[in-house]
Amino acid sequence: MSDLDSFKWWGWGAADRRAQVSATAQAALREELGVEPGAGSEPIALERVALPEPRPVPEAVGDAMPAGRLLTDTEARLRRAAGRSYPDLMRLRSGKLELAPDAVAVPADRAEVAAVLSACAGPRVAVVPFGGGSSVVGGLDAVADGHAAVISLDLGALRGVELDRTSLTATLGPGLRGPEAEAALGGLGVTLGHFPQSFEQATIGGYAATRSAGQASSGFGRFDEMVTALELTSPAGVLRTRETPHTAAGPSLRELVLGSEGTLGVITEVTCRVRPAPQLRRYEGWIAADFASGREIIRELAQRDEMPDTLRLSDEEETRVSLQLAGSEGWQKRALDAYLGLRRRRGGCLLICGWEGEREAVRRRRSLAGRRLRAGGAVALGGTAGRTWERGRFEGPYLRDELLGLGVLVETLETAHSWSRLEELYRAVGGALREALGPRSIVMCHLSHAYADGASLYFTFFAAARPGEELEQWRAAKTGACEAIVSAGGTITHHHAVGRDHAPYMRAEVGELGLEALRAVKQRLDPAGVMNPGKLLP
Amino acid sequence: MSDLDSFKWWGWGAADRRAQVSATAQAALREELGVEPGAGSEPIALERVALPEPRPVPEAVGDAMPAGRLLTDTEARLRRAAGRSYPDLMRLRSGKLELAPDAVAVPADRAEVAAVLSACAGPRVAVVPFGGGSSVVGGLDAVADGHAAVISLDLGALRGVELDRTSLTATLGPGLRGPEAEAALGGLGVTLGHFPQSFEQATIGGYAATRSAGQASSGFGRFDEMVTALELTSPAGVLRTRETPHTAAGPSLRELVLGSEGTLGVITEVTCRVRPAPQLRRYEGWIAADFASGREIIRELAQRDEMPDTLRLSDEEETRVSLQLAGSEGWQKRALDAYLGLRRRRGGCLLICGWEGEREAVRRRRSLAGRRLRAGGAVALGGTAGRTWERGRFEGPYLRDELLGLGVLVETLETAHSWSRLEELYRAVGGALREALGPRSIVMCHLSHAYADGASLYFTFFAAARPGEELEQWRAAKTGACEAIVSAGGTITHHHAVGRDHAPYMRAEVGELGLEALRAVKQRLDPAGVMNPGKLLP
Repeated sequence: MSDLDSFKWWGWGAADRRAQVSATAQAALREELGVEPGAGSEPIALERVALPEPRPVPEAVGDAMPAGRLLTDTEARLRRAAGRSYPDLMRLRSGKLELAPDAVAVPADRAEVAAVLSACAGPRVAVVPFGGGSSVVGGLDAVADGHAAVISLDLGALRGVELDRTSLTATLGPGLRGPEAEAALGGLGVTLGHFPQSFEQATIGGYAATRSAGQASSGFGRFDEMVTALELTSPAGVLRTRETPHTAAGPSLRELVLGSEGTLGVITEVTCRVRPAPQLRRYEGWIAADFASGREIIRELAQRDEMPDTLRLSDEEETRVSLQLAGSEGWQKRALDAYLGLRRRRGGCLLICGWEGEREAVRRRRSLAGRRLRAGGAVALGGTAGRTWERGRFEGPYLRDELLGLGVLVETLETAHSWSRLEELYRAVGGALREALGPRSIVMCHLSHAYADGASLYFTFFAAARPGEELEQWRAAKTGACEAIVSAGGTITHHHAVGRDHAPYMRAEVGELGLEALRAVKQRLDPAGVMNPGKLLP
Repeated sequence: MSDLDSFKWWGWGAADRRAQVSATAQAALREELGVEPGAGSEPIALERVALPEPRPVPEAVGDAMPAGRLLTDTEARLRRAAGRSYPDLMRLRSGKLELAPDAVAVPADRAEVAAVLSACAGPRVAVVPFGGGSSVVGGLDAVADGHAAVISLDLGALRGVELDRTSLTATLGPGLRGPEAEAALGGLGVTLGHFPQSFEQATIGGYAATRSAGQASSGFGRFDEMVTALELTSPAGVLRTRETPHTAAGPSLRELVLGSEGTLGVITEVTCRVRPAPQLRRYEGWIAADFASGREIIRELAQRDEMPDTLRLSDEEETRVSLQLAGSEGWQKRALDAYLGLRRRRGGCLLICGWEGEREAVRRRRSLAGRRLRAGGAVALGGTAGRTWERGRFEGPYLRDELLGLGVLVETLETAHSWSRLEELYRAVGGALREALGPRSIVMCHLSHAYADGASLYFTFFAAARPGEELEQWRAAKTGACEAIVSAGGTITHHHAVGRDHAPYMRAEVGELGLEALRAVKQRLDPAGVMNPGKLLP
């Protein structure tokens, strides 16, 4: 009924796959962060995990589902109890979960989704929609918030795929995971081209509910830009937007459902743009003289409409750490040499560029971007660097699990601002993280989503975990960064969504009247307030 | 205080400018439509116009405005009493207006806008925001809807221009007209690139409130795509969205304000993307073998990301009528020859393509599109055809006034659909219009806004006006077309907005729950329901 069993319950991705961290890299990282020898630990055994005692789920909810589609066993609850943020992972690894759904409903189709929502509204049972389980903002926390019980609503059975080849759109079920959607569409000769780092686990419904952005979003668009129509099944009924390429008929209801994070209802169908499967994928590495000049190159590319489909610029620190973690053979060695050569100027920053599409279009666009890169002082590293990045593009979360096992705190967060204020945001957030984590931390950043008017910044930070105080340590860093973002006028999230972790900053983000407008919509679509309590709205 | 005096009160555009229709074209049109000799008439004199008796405006409203900023004279009321749809124009020309605002407030700044809205909420005075007065969907009708009085809120004094050269965004006052905004930005070396046919009159605030699309929207984006942030001053307070290139922080409030048509509040500031002023503008004409093959060429261009900035394909009928109205010398003659040559195959359709930007980018993009056009069987007419179109691009509404004076009913309407259902929509709407207007009518269409997943269709229709029954005649055609659009699953409007004329179709467009969501937002932002009653929501 679900493929969740093939994933780790305590960490990222396929149950049978772990990342390798070389002994040299481990030693360097421990030394730099001051990790004590023997720190860290493996996750506890599944049978030792302690979940909160389940509250009884009102009979009406079970009655709304065919037999076997309301699960109450511990593993089913555990597997929907958390996302994959640092606090989530630490709670899972330690087996101490304060929150878990009391039961898991797995509706077979849209009618059953509607039936479950109807059954929950009366007795006020909270509903947490569940897609891929990859939230990094507490979007899956089973917050009761005064409700009688909390159920997880797993959309895993809604997996339809229908292609409109003329319009190049596909209508997809929300439960399809990234690889599954790509495989189905690939068999029809097209691609969605949406590759977030969470690709292996995340689902179509989750992409839409959180306004996901993928690694190739510069070329293919963020997921919210790709969605042409969708269906929301809410407690008050079904809302379906028109499948027309655009409409001027009032405020956009599609844009009201996108990013609603399960608080208005459940996204039960998504129509989105697809493209012909690419003839050619070409990824390559460059080294920019420094982060500022690399940023200027990207601004030029974005403002001249010459962007590669994938573009990612690491700052000096991320460049250094990536090379260190990756070892020093092959292209990494050559990259390092180029980097050191440039270092004599002002340091160096790794830039990954990727193009996908028809052979001739890739050639033409690559040549345009190459000219701009060279004009901006960047040095080409060639295709090997790009291919290596491409091969490892979904590796980050696996690596993170290993570092957690070594006693390292690792977390990421992201924001965005206009070009004129990006440097200010970069300094403010980096500074806040360093202050919270102390001198023996690593705070690194890349710019991976660029627009004509601005770009996003994606921060990764490392520190030695303080045993027993990991969550407080994380909280201090997260709060410092969020407050810095708000002060600098950036957005609290470019593509990770709000969930529970960012909800306290929504007032700063949209203002009191903005919150009121969103609350008004929620009250109309979810009058009993059962949909994903504690998320999005403070 | 206002430049409205420089425009016609009874028709389109500059008071001192009229279009010429050649005697040959007049004769041909009369003959084809069966217009009786002597039909039609000039507009009556301004002093003979009869406005409804003004209701007294509560003192609080006058008190909220500095002296001289609340106008009550007949001409001030008349000039804000109607938009520029066929019914609007017929009412103005005949001097018989059933609706007019009781007074006109002209706030000097955003604080005065807020003050007026506050003053109106208590005594329930309806407020109709007024930008350029170019609505063609009844968006300006002074509907009292149970209110004590109706005021027009003229945003003409809010004309700020501020450029962020690094981020290539401009923050603009809502009262700036198209030419004024372009002149100010042009002086700073940039362009908005938004050129709707209403350019001369329409304003920035109106563009945003109605989700305007311009002639170059294929390249520059529709106006709603260009807006990065905006401010809404509502009766309940001010809502301002963040100036970041994107955010995943929940549903998009920007997209809730865009298209709100003054029903939620007044758009008091708009930040939007600009581009460097183009080095080169290149417009050229082509002839496609027929509408279907021209449409396929455009679909290819859109799906391969090879679209010109402007692209417009006339169907066979529009091609024939345009050439007829334009005369038969110069390029028109050559176009006609090419057209007739092609006719031996299956007819011919005029295609206008335009590129704007850096010389080299224009050359490259033009060559790409040219290849696709030739591959699709289109024949190049050269630059003269394009330049002629470019020169006459804002001429349509002037021409229309002249045809009205000759006793011809002329109206336009537009819709959009996915590529796979565009042909069905084209036939359905054309058929409905021909049925309503009878055999001696002209119904023509062009495709001018194309996307990867679909395109818009823009219909223009002509018939002999039935004296004294013009509005009923119009109503029958409009209703037939709207019902055909709804049945075919198209959108009721691609870029003219909803206003009062399309409000009855909003239930079909967004569903009952969609309406409920919009009503919920309106109740929160405009609790007294004073904002633009009778528009958008049925």
